Amino acid sequence: MSEKLTGACIIGQSGGPTSVINASAYGAISAALEAEEITQVLGADHGITGVLSDTLYDMGLEDPAELKLLCNTPSSELGSCRYKLADPDVDDTDYKTILDIFKKHNVRYFFYNGGNDSMDTCDKISRFMARSGWECRVMGIPKTIDNDLVGTDHCPGFASAAKYIATSCMEVSCDSRVYPTGQVTVMEIMGRHAGWLAAASALGAHLGAGPDLIYLPELNFDMDAFLADVERVYREKGNCLACVSEGIHYADGTFVSEAKASATDGFGHAQLGGLAARLADAVKARLGVKTRAIELSLLQRCGAHLASGRDVAEAELAGRVAVESAIAGETGKMVAFERTEENGEYVCKTKLIPLTSVANAEKKVPLEWITPEGNFVTDDFIAYALPLIQGQPDRPTESALPRYARLKKIRA
Amino acid sequence: MSEKLTGACIIGQSGGPTSVINASAYGAISAALEAEEITQVLGADHGITGVLSDTLYDMGLEDPAELKLLCNTPSSELGSCRYKLADPDVDDTDYKTILDIFKKHNVRYFFYNGGNDSMDTCDKISRFMARSGWECRVMGIPKTIDNDLVGTDHCPGFASAAKYIATSCMEVSCDSRVYPTGQVTVMEIMGRHAGWLAAASALGAHLGAGPDLIYLPELNFDMDAFLADVERVYREKGNCLACVSEGIHYADGTFVSEAKASATDGFGHAQLGGLAARLADAVKARLGVKTRAIELSLLQRCGAHLASGRDVAEAELAGRVAVESAIAGETGKMVAFERTEENGEYVCKTKLIPLTSVANAEKKVPLEWITPEGNFVTDDFIAYALPLIQGQPDRPTESALPRYARLKKIRA
Repeated sequence: MSEKLTGACIIGQSGGPTSVINASAYGAISAALEAEEITQVLGADHGITGVLSDTLYDMGLEDPAELKLLCNTPSSELGSCRYKLADPDVDDTDYKTILDIFKKHNVRYFFYNGGNDSMDTCDKISRFMARSGWECRVMGIPKTIDNDLVGTDHCPGFASAAKYIATSCMEVSCDSRVYPTGQVTVMEIMGRHAGWLAAASALGAHLGAGPDLIYLPELNFDMDAFLADVERVYREKGNCLACVSEGIHYADGTFVSEAKASATDGFGHAQLGGLAARLADAVKARLGVKTRAIELSLLQRCGAHLASGRDVAEAELAGRVAVESAIAGETGKMVAFERTEENGEYVCKTKLIPLTSVANAEKKVPLEWITPEGNFVTDDFIAYALPLIQGQPDRPTESALPRYARLKKIRA
Repeated sequence: MSEKLTGACIIGQSGGPTSVINASAYGAISAALEAEEITQVLGADHGITGVLSDTLYDMGLEDPAELKLLCNTPSSELGSCRYKLADPDVDDTDYKTILDIFKKHNVRYFFYNGGNDSMDTCDKISRFMARSGWECRVMGIPKTIDNDLVGTDHCPGFASAAKYIATSCMEVSCDSRVYPTGQVTVMEIMGRHAGWLAAASALGAHLGAGPDLIYLPELNFDMDAFLADVERVYREKGNCLACVSEGIHYADGTFVSEAKASATDGFGHAQLGGLAARLADAVKARLGVKTRAIELSLLQRCGAHLASGRDVAEAELAGRVAVESAIAGETGKMVAFERTEENGEYVCKTKLIPLTSVANAEKKVPLEWITPEGNFVTDDFIAYALPLIQGQPDRPTESALPRYARLKKIRA
């Protein structure tokens, strides 16, 4: 048992929002409000930038019922940022400011919720505080729809985005085969370096509605093979739905979305709307069939009305465990998930891993979970992802529309 | 009471799919299966084209539980078409084929589910049958997310699309204000001539999350006024969400999506992805701020997981009433909705209106429901649309994903 450390805590949100990052905030805030060691619970406005500008909200002044509604609220309610701290050995200006703010509010606990860049921020602050002699326990709470954090079975936010993507692909699959004339639909899904989200489009396919083809950034993209795949499916079925990660790239590393137009790849226009439009255009040029390009865009990362019940519960748990672990003496760690089974049922347990092991690393879809043809995922991926999307959380509504948290955000 | 007419019936789906057109099919099919006057219930493959090719499925051979799941299934499960019948006075080839098929299967009832083009098809067939001496009762069942059919308070399919759009706009609104840097987001919503769907984006705004600006095709679009509106909101709030109908057009009638690039409108590229990308580009060129373009695309018309419970129930009712009315002797009519109130509560009743009054006409958003500035809708629109999106239908799932009907489609 570690020595008791009493003081304020700061909770910050960072990086791209998800459907459940606010559930983690709620887990951390509610655990911190309950803890006698924590004298004040501060929410940072727009992550670390709110710490730097001393824009901190007193979460203890919020209505508890509104705080609970954070579990129903997509995006980062406290505001997010993409601010990268300098290497403290090169420029420690920001760190000194952070230390001043921590001292001003007697901050002894710092919880930061984000992806690998945010864990890097967290790690740097943790090490700076240790060196500075200001006792402050720093914990990372994982978050990313991209599911690419190492050391954890999966990341809060992934499952809800996966459920949104799978459901939307099922619906589009039904819609895009409606006319006798047939159609090739190309759907662009987030994931710059890891294909977890595009892979999730496969989840409805075994139910009879979903994509015919899936392309992930884990493999090099081959335009000729893609067009041959689409043509084969179209000839067989009269239509085709192909899902692609935004990060698919050619063998030389060039993103398909950014490659220069050439005569061989069928890109007729110098400037098109996006990757899906480019590929749809290439299909049209080669096969002469009706095409449609769909980009899931922000919708996939904020589609909270389709959140996975497990994801919401696990996100809240991750926030709570971060606080409880810090109070118990832990610091410099990130909460991670370990999957086990009990009586054949999925069980998710938490563990702590060093921030240094998470920062700036990326976990990709295992190559053996991609079919030999490189155009779909295997049943191993389905077995991995399907348990994660289970459960329909209680989602309060007002006028048949989602009821989100309305925070007062009173400055501390 | 009309003379009893005994024979088979055909049910066909036509035009763009919706989240609830299959609920209307279920209403019609189940009522027809119950009716002793109807000897066989046939589903036309891809609407009238399936009649012309004699591709008809025997709905009586389907598992009743699977038929019921049509209420949970987006898009047109029997397949749709956009086939326009010729004027029978000019070319009656198709009509003679239809008459042959009707005689072959002893078809005495024809139910066609679609928008105004489909009501035109329905009307032409009705009149041809009357002239030909083959007794056949023809009824139209309304359907269109565009909500632009005349003579009915609203159209099945609109409310579910409206609920999807309103919810998605709330979510995107939360997401697009997440960074301290700010952003202008432009969202493109379906509606070529009528702005009902884009107007529906306003439904979440009174709950604190939704668009700041809305532009409908009922008014001429003015790029300078648009940019000034966006700039004002952005300066005030630090971000801005603008929703636009795909059909917005300049005063000379040119669609904004198709207008040639010019120096004055800020379009830097000759060819862009779509309307939202064009407008986002114009904003970026004028204001130099971060922008994002989102097109709701097919998602808005097939987002059945967010269907309005009332819409599903009313769509089913419309199908059932069409069958019951035809059995009672009606023909050449479309089922329409009349809104009344009982004890201050919304009540929807059905009535029948002549097909000729519906075919090829369009109902637009009343100009007095658009604000004087032309950039939002009034509370009158909210009062009109909010009752329509109420209710969460029972939506069966399998593996946490929607369970759609799986029909055997056995040829008759």
